[in-house]
Amino acid sequence: MLFINLVKKYPFLAVLTTVLLLLVSCKEDTKTPSTVSSSETTSNQHPSLILTKAGVEKIRANLGNIPVFDKTLEAVKAEIDAEIELGIEVPIPKDYSGGYTHARHKKNWLTLQKAGVLYQILDDEKYAMYVKDMLFQYEAMYKTLPVHPKTRSYARGKLFWQCLNDSNWLVYVSQAYDCVYDYLSEEERSKLENNLFRPFADFISIENPQFYNRVHNHSTWGNAAVGMIGLVMKDSVLVNRALYGIEGVAIDKTAKDDDGGFINKDGKAGFLANIEKPFSPDGYYTEGPYYQRYAMYPFLIFAEGLQNVQPDLKIFEYKEGVLLKSVNALLNLSDADGEFFPLNDGQKGMSYYSRELVTAVDIAYQHGNQDPGLLSIAKLQDQVVLDDSGFSVAYDIENSTIEPFEKKSINLSDGSNGNEGGVGILRNEPIELVFKYAAHGSSHGHYDKLSFSLYEKGEEVLQDYGLARFVNIEQKGGGNYLKENTTWAKQTIAHNTLTVNETSHFKGKYEIGSKHHSELSFFDSDNANVQIASAKEDNAYPGTKMHRTMAIIKDASFEKPFVLDILKITSETKNQYDLPYYYMGQVLDTNFEYTTPKTLQALGAKEGYQHLFVEGKGKASGATTRFSWLSNRKFYTLTAATSKTDQLYFTRIGANDPDFNLRRDAGFMLRRPNTKNTVFVSVIESHGSYSPVSEFALNSKSNISEVKVLHDTEDYLAVNITDISGKTHLFILANKNVLKETKHSLIINNNEYQWTGPYYYN
Amino acid sequence: MLFINLVKKYPFLAVLTTVLLLLVSCKEDTKTPSTVSSSETTSNQHPSLILTKAGVEKIRANLGNIPVFDKTLEAVKAEIDAEIELGIEVPIPKDYSGGYTHARHKKNWLTLQKAGVLYQILDDEKYAMYVKDMLFQYEAMYKTLPVHPKTRSYARGKLFWQCLNDSNWLVYVSQAYDCVYDYLSEEERSKLENNLFRPFADFISIENPQFYNRVHNHSTWGNAAVGMIGLVMKDSVLVNRALYGIEGVAIDKTAKDDDGGFINKDGKAGFLANIEKPFSPDGYYTEGPYYQRYAMYPFLIFAEGLQNVQPDLKIFEYKEGVLLKSVNALLNLSDADGEFFPLNDGQKGMSYYSRELVTAVDIAYQHGNQDPGLLSIAKLQDQVVLDDSGFSVAYDIENSTIEPFEKKSINLSDGSNGNEGGVGILRNEPIELVFKYAAHGSSHGHYDKLSFSLYEKGEEVLQDYGLARFVNIEQKGGGNYLKENTTWAKQTIAHNTLTVNETSHFKGKYEIGSKHHSELSFFDSDNANVQIASAKEDNAYPGTKMHRTMAIIKDASFEKPFVLDILKITSETKNQYDLPYYYMGQVLDTNFEYTTPKTLQALGAKEGYQHLFVEGKGKASGATTRFSWLSNRKFYTLTAATSKTDQLYFTRIGANDPDFNLRRDAGFMLRRPNTKNTVFVSVIESHGSYSPVSEFALNSKSNISEVKVLHDTEDYLAVNITDISGKTHLFILANKNVLKETKHSLIINNNEYQWTGPYYYN
Repeated sequence: MLFINLVKKYPFLAVLTTVLLLLVSCKEDTKTPSTVSSSETTSNQHPSLILTKAGVEKIRANLGNIPVFDKTLEAVKAEIDAEIELGIEVPIPKDYSGGYTHARHKKNWLTLQKAGVLYQILDDEKYAMYVKDMLFQYEAMYKTLPVHPKTRSYARGKLFWQCLNDSNWLVYVSQAYDCVYDYLSEEERSKLENNLFRPFADFISIENPQFYNRVHNHSTWGNAAVGMIGLVMKDSVLVNRALYGIEGVAIDKTAKDDDGGFINKDGKAGFLANIEKPFSPDGYYTEGPYYQRYAMYPFLIFAEGLQNVQPDLKIFEYKEGVLLKSVNALLNLSDADGEFFPLNDGQKGMSYYSRELVTAVDIAYQHGNQDPGLLSIAKLQDQVVLDDSGFSVAYDIENSTIEPFEKKSINLSDGSNGNEGGVGILRNEPIELVFKYAAHGSSHGHYDKLSFSLYEKGEEVLQDYGLARFVNIEQKGGGNYLKENTTWAKQTIAHNTLTVNETSHFKGKYEIGSKHHSELSFFDSDNANVQIASAKEDNAYPGTKMHRTMAIIKDASFEKPFVLDILKITSETKNQYDLPYYYMGQVLDTNFEYTTPKTLQALGAKEGYQHLFVEGKGKASGATTRFSWLSNRKFYTLTAATSKTDQLYFTRIGANDPDFNLRRDAGFMLRRPNTKNTVFVSVIESHGSYSPVSEFALNSKSNISEVKVLHDTEDYLAVNITDISGKTHLFILANKNVLKETKHSLIINNNEYQWTGPYYYN
Repeated sequence: MLFINLVKKYPFLAVLTTVLLLLVSCKEDTKTPSTVSSSETTSNQHPSLILTKAGVEKIRANLGNIPVFDKTLEAVKAEIDAEIELGIEVPIPKDYSGGYTHARHKKNWLTLQKAGVLYQILDDEKYAMYVKDMLFQYEAMYKTLPVHPKTRSYARGKLFWQCLNDSNWLVYVSQAYDCVYDYLSEEERSKLENNLFRPFADFISIENPQFYNRVHNHSTWGNAAVGMIGLVMKDSVLVNRALYGIEGVAIDKTAKDDDGGFINKDGKAGFLANIEKPFSPDGYYTEGPYYQRYAMYPFLIFAEGLQNVQPDLKIFEYKEGVLLKSVNALLNLSDADGEFFPLNDGQKGMSYYSRELVTAVDIAYQHGNQDPGLLSIAKLQDQVVLDDSGFSVAYDIENSTIEPFEKKSINLSDGSNGNEGGVGILRNEPIELVFKYAAHGSSHGHYDKLSFSLYEKGEEVLQDYGLARFVNIEQKGGGNYLKENTTWAKQTIAHNTLTVNETSHFKGKYEIGSKHHSELSFFDSDNANVQIASAKEDNAYPGTKMHRTMAIIKDASFEKPFVLDILKITSETKNQYDLPYYYMGQVLDTNFEYTTPKTLQALGAKEGYQHLFVEGKGKASGATTRFSWLSNRKFYTLTAATSKTDQLYFTRIGANDPDFNLRRDAGFMLRRPNTKNTVFVSVIESHGSYSPVSEFALNSKSNISEVKVLHDTEDYLAVNITDISGKTHLFILANKNVLKETKHSLIINNNEYQWTGPYYYN
């Protein structure tokens, strides 16, 4: 830390040190070429990024004895042998993502990296020759290659329509070059470096500062690309440009990128700034897990290269080891099947089985404290990276103790300093709840303060819609963001949270939303029976404050843990409050009357409302409203405390969707019109099961007869749940004074309740 | 067969024979009590229905050595021990299916049967005592029990709302009684027989002839119930009533049951008539696989009892061994995951993992020719019946060769004599197509002549909607058929077949539809590259004839086998033709323009059209119309030959559905208005894949540039498919003279084609 801080103050120190290190390692190189361990300086050897000479020796010595490694190797060998058989193709760039030239160059970067690694591990010249041949085809093309013909990007690349993908290419190809470095003659190397690598690195950095010189996942890729090729080429200028950004570049602080995010509001840049800013101290990446996954690869692969070449930088200890913490955070941001919660712009189905997470888990294992829980994830992944870290993991899967990676309730703070809200994940038996009270999440953020989604055994119960995009599927808008991402997916009404007066949080404006975050009231997972998080949002609607508390409560009177959802609203004005629940599955039953219209019309005209059809409309029949549905062969019931003026809507996504870009998913919405202060309280139960094979319907009915707000003051809120046996269950929330040790006492209906801590449940 | 025919003519023979058999076996009983094999007469021994004394001995001798059997035994023992612990509950009947008393009595019949079997296998008196105690609680209640209070059924039961379920109860409880027969004193037995079993058997037969005396799955249960208790009680009157129906009962031939089917149009009755009539010689059961599965249990379990007690009847050889053939047919009527095709009224998800199929497979194995393919299904089921047949299977899984149960293309005729149309199943690699050209399918039939559904690896590609019912889920209409089953699921427009002038086949009238069936033109699965079926329907619309040909064609120019769908229509009048395809998944892309309405309206007012919302409408832009969609992470394209007057609709199920009883699934529909004779030709391709983990979209585009009708006469129809490389693929169909050996010659555009058999493809 001290060194890094010094370097920040005096950048010349870094240059000096790198030069010194290069000198030192040159000397060492001639002395002990084959005995250098990865923890020592190996800076003038090759390979040195993800493989080291020592590592390669160890791998070669163990070939055939480490099943997961051998299996991965066999698969990669088969894949690359087939590719070599097919011949090299380096087409003139022309397409957007989803198109042929895009897919081909993407395939090439992956193939080059793998072929390079195979050359090192198998010591078979055919792989080196293949890498060399393809690199020279790129060299021949790149020299005269103009900027990419597609014009949509704020930072057009050369091989791809955006610099981002050019950077992806260089991050991978640097590794390939590192692997064949010694195979090439000095002349060949200088041809490649002068005509391809250095101009390439300059293009994505100096020539595109709006892309390179900012804090954003795009820039992280750019920084890593420049840094990794710099490490291979021993070019300290490039390495420093990677670590600290381009010197002396001024960027328009009000300019925006393709996604509508500010390019560079505060002038920070470089790899270290990119670690500093978007990661919270808990390792949460502000854009959300989908982009964290995407960003993890350049963060970790470049960090690994730095660790191998410049161990004194202690990159894995930077910001209290946040890179390693981020792997843990990311694994915790997945459901029971390993799929990431689709917070903000996130494509569903992305999971810890992705290649980025294979890398992340392997690197975190080797460069962290060899957490045996990570081995169980690696075992599920059933593959490793073909490098030193992957070998360590594969070796220890065989020779060490594997422990389950236990996912418990966890609170992850957001913001560089951990004080910009966060994401609370509550877990209890099969039930998993993700509660978002974070910062905006940069340009990929959604306007959904205090929203949540609910899972059971990895299946969505109440969904977060995710993004409106079909990544890399050309037929759907070239595989890029669809306009419905803005008009629907980002809007507040698309989420399980409150929309006031049919207007999104912060009026749906990034300029406003990106300035604010929600505030945690408390998070408490100490009591195994009550996993709870509570947070407040005061800025989404000026003059209207929201305070939402979510708990998963395990109670012997119930078959499974149930969810308690309390949303207290305090406002200066009368408003219309809409609180939707995007349930998955089919309506079973309600305790209220509703009508279904002959023709379906949109719920509203803007802010996402234009995309919801109204399939049914009713009124609460009394103080307790019940709605049951069937999903994934299980029964679910939402029981809400209501008043007779509450309106109830059944909605269906898909209105005003001319290209069928949206899924036709369902929603149930509580609407409370013309109200100032109020509380929404709902209980969500999962109960029973249905088997279409035995045709048994077990426990298909709710266990609750009434949900009631017993007490509602500035200080306390009490909710009474009566089960069908007549037994009552009382929950009291302290709105203030939420310290764990604070004693409370409250009289409700002549009964006095005393407890310690922010809540009472009995 | 001779004996059975004689008995039919002279029923007294059966009584006489049974009495003689009883006498003979009494003698044998005293001679060799412990060495009787299941193939000998064991009629006066107990147990004798599904377990025999010899079988029980063999089972006991092998306990602990036969894993699948031991595992099943352990699971059943744990289940029944827990039940015994909970105590006996025999509530006064009150509820419909889905309600408590229904579920309880259902649970009781299952528990009794299992407890009885456990007593025999484990020789532990506690199980016999439990059976005895519960039976006497039923005895005490039944004596004075009135008819069930719920009035909806045409044949109300006593324990249940319909005689059908009372019969279910007796089929199972007979087995329990058989197992504890020797444990009970003679006095106890006569009390049970006089107060419970005989009145019970009389109630469901003599007192409910409209239920008992017909050819229908309901009656099969009734017959089996009466027959099985008759076999245990050695009551030849009951056994004969089971085999041949109630003597001398006249039933109103125009009366209908709850499902709208005729009660008894031709006066046949009894178990043998129930085998005779609904099964085709291929073993297809006219109601479809869902009900065949349901009916299999009483068919096979009673047949097994008959085989054990009255082997001379040779029940498994009856109608050329149709009972055993039916098990093979049923297994073939399942998709790659073992789920039955939901032809007619069928609830999706029902599969060969159901308890009925465990029984069917075990009995078919033991009483058939020990097909090693059945062992592989039994291994998948991972359980066996705890009886002689289940033991044989479990034993042979360990000690014999298991072969895969290979599902190939198969044609299953419908109708007692196999001449009432049928169901053709085409299979080629991952693609599976079910083509229905059958008879109406009794009261559970749908109006969907020449319809089809398409599967890939067990996933629906083009779905058959199935039924509109949530079996045993009380909240949905008591778990019974919903009104949308009639207004939607049975209607023609709900299926992938032709609707003319917005009217269902046979005007949706059972009286008409049940008189007709489609006619096979040919079925040919000899060529591994072309699996094909062709059939004609002349009666669904008087004056309009349909001829549909479906093929799965494997061609090296295509990634996977594709489907060719040719529907030729000849009419005396101009009509509107609607041909829908109920695709699963989401619209990707079209080659035609369409508009999406702001408000959704129903496509029509009746015959199912009132349940379809129009989500989009367009016109064919030219001679080839292309529509692609994404489903289950695979790409699909339908390419149709069209004219510019063809209208194209995107539909969504769910209009006029006040209780949300219908799934919101999608459809794509070709409409050809104001047309006399015409041909619809479409090709359906499955291509490529999408992974949300790697985000690679492979082969996401169709391989076809044009589909064209080249030739269309009374005799021949030729279709030309041009792939994107420009290569043409010609298919010629002979509309007549479809014998395999017939030689054809045809000149198209000056080229002469010569071939042998009903089709040409090159």
